[in-house]
Amino acid sequence: MSGAVQRALITGGAGFIGSNLADRLLADGVQVVVYDNFSTGRHEFLEGVLTHPYGDVVKADVLDGKALREALEGCDTVFHLQANADVRHGLEHPRRDLEQNALATSELLEAMRDAGVTRMGFASSGSVYGEPDLVPTPEDAPMPIQTSLYGASKVAAEGTLHAYCHGFGFTGVVFRFVSILGERYTHGHVIDFYRALRADPSRLRVLGDGRQRKSYLYVGDCVQGMLTAMAAHPEPGDAAVYNVGTNETVTVDDSVAIIAQRLGASPVVEHTGGKRGWPGDSPLILLDCRKLRALGWSPTLPTDQAVLRTVDWLETNA
Amino acid sequence: MSGAVQRALITGGAGFIGSNLADRLLADGVQVVVYDNFSTGRHEFLEGVLTHPYGDVVKADVLDGKALREALEGCDTVFHLQANADVRHGLEHPRRDLEQNALATSELLEAMRDAGVTRMGFASSGSVYGEPDLVPTPEDAPMPIQTSLYGASKVAAEGTLHAYCHGFGFTGVVFRFVSILGERYTHGHVIDFYRALRADPSRLRVLGDGRQRKSYLYVGDCVQGMLTAMAAHPEPGDAAVYNVGTNETVTVDDSVAIIAQRLGASPVVEHTGGKRGWPGDSPLILLDCRKLRALGWSPTLPTDQAVLRTVDWLETNA
Repeated sequence: MSGAVQRALITGGAGFIGSNLADRLLADGVQVVVYDNFSTGRHEFLEGVLTHPYGDVVKADVLDGKALREALEGCDTVFHLQANADVRHGLEHPRRDLEQNALATSELLEAMRDAGVTRMGFASSGSVYGEPDLVPTPEDAPMPIQTSLYGASKVAAEGTLHAYCHGFGFTGVVFRFVSILGERYTHGHVIDFYRALRADPSRLRVLGDGRQRKSYLYVGDCVQGMLTAMAAHPEPGDAAVYNVGTNETVTVDDSVAIIAQRLGASPVVEHTGGKRGWPGDSPLILLDCRKLRALGWSPTLPTDQAVLRTVDWLETNA
Repeated sequence: MSGAVQRALITGGAGFIGSNLADRLLADGVQVVVYDNFSTGRHEFLEGVLTHPYGDVVKADVLDGKALREALEGCDTVFHLQANADVRHGLEHPRRDLEQNALATSELLEAMRDAGVTRMGFASSGSVYGEPDLVPTPEDAPMPIQTSLYGASKVAAEGTLHAYCHGFGFTGVVFRFVSILGERYTHGHVIDFYRALRADPSRLRVLGDGRQRKSYLYVGDCVQGMLTAMAAHPEPGDAAVYNVGTNETVTVDDSVAIIAQRLGASPVVEHTGGKRGWPGDSPLILLDCRKLRALGWSPTLPTDQAVLRTVDWLETNA
């Protein structure tokens, strides 16, 4: 299922998706190097990696070229999941997205070239589509106007990877994720609502009008989607893009209702108003994932179940 | 014709397109600040600016935030033409495009925000389309796979500008140029061929198979196109993209024939082979420019005339 991957380095491997991917690769018999600077990554997510004979952990930054080149030794594949994932506050630190997403990807690609590692799976985002005219949005949607610095930096990183495929014979598979939910979920609306309701179950403030429609995917399905796509692109020079999401959307208010019910809360919901929660928020995210489904992949968990599983995980791990 | 522009700062204003734009704006009664680090810009292109009462020149780098903020004082519009324009050798210095195109644009936007200057015309490139499926290629072509680091860095800069329009109420007009020809042309295939034929008129080496089809636009038409589009977007928060080119293509071999004939040369042409001149070269560039034409703009000079005018300028200024 992991194709020809024998030893994989995962940047951001101590994070939510990264640590789930690490556990899955180890279970598949793949050697794993978790590479993380632990700015947001968590040691407690790496219990499985640290206790596995095939698991390695390197605490270092992607911008530390020396550490990176050493860690890449013997690897055949990189899953690049490290990123500044703070979409919402991008405008407050306008250089951060470019530096931590675009430039870091460029540095990583150079280190890979030096180390002779030429396969990368890259975690991009559905936010590259800005506010698309076409919904569900396919991978070859009309070239969008970016609405967030996060989206702009992800487009830059995608483009840099593709130029390496074209110019240096790299294999690059880009994953444009919807929001991911599940075990080890650490930031996003579910945790915000969960904490707010745990603090005060009687009321809840929701950014925007609550009718923003979003897609969520369970992290196990996300990892399976990544491995399915990687296995389909073994050739040097291959550059491919896959949307990774479900066929469903839920409104923010629906999501609130699911969370509140699980917690036995009946909050008065106060909307801040406007069709976007913040500048750059997309009022509607629904990706056309037929390209990935055509490879035999499909999500196993419906969205409401993914939300519930996330809440349950937060209950025992908060 | 320059819309509401009263005082414009032009990054890269001592370069080919920038200095032509500066002269045109001054002729239109606009105050002009040429901002250039003179790494490739030329003093001799600024005779008109230096002798004009409304013309200012600041020698500084776009990454010099202090100089930039001072130079922006009193300006209402920025034309951002500074760039690393070395498309062909991008793979030899993989960080340069991101730094000099994407990061520099980000720094400039921040300086503009501090200075309260919120209108930018940005010189992007048709190379953002990679190798498009759709030709002539419209602005909303299917989201492409990037084939050059230059294209990836321009997409990043475009996206950053658009995020500033969305988040900070900037007005951003993006120009996706074809190759530009005319007076003060300083790099590209015409000068390469011109120099080679002046050195040895009996033979000429051409990268690729010579059948790459390109579009060229005369610099006067390019400047007119920029001003036309800027005038059409006065509103804060406006983000627009315009292709700027002609309806024609010429093959590289055609271009060689025009240049050789003008120089009275009959070279034996040797092709290095392959449908691309270099990795990231696009075998066919033809942009759909109906959006800009709908504003009343159209090129005045056919491609062959633009090539000849360039050769004639090189003859008297080489």
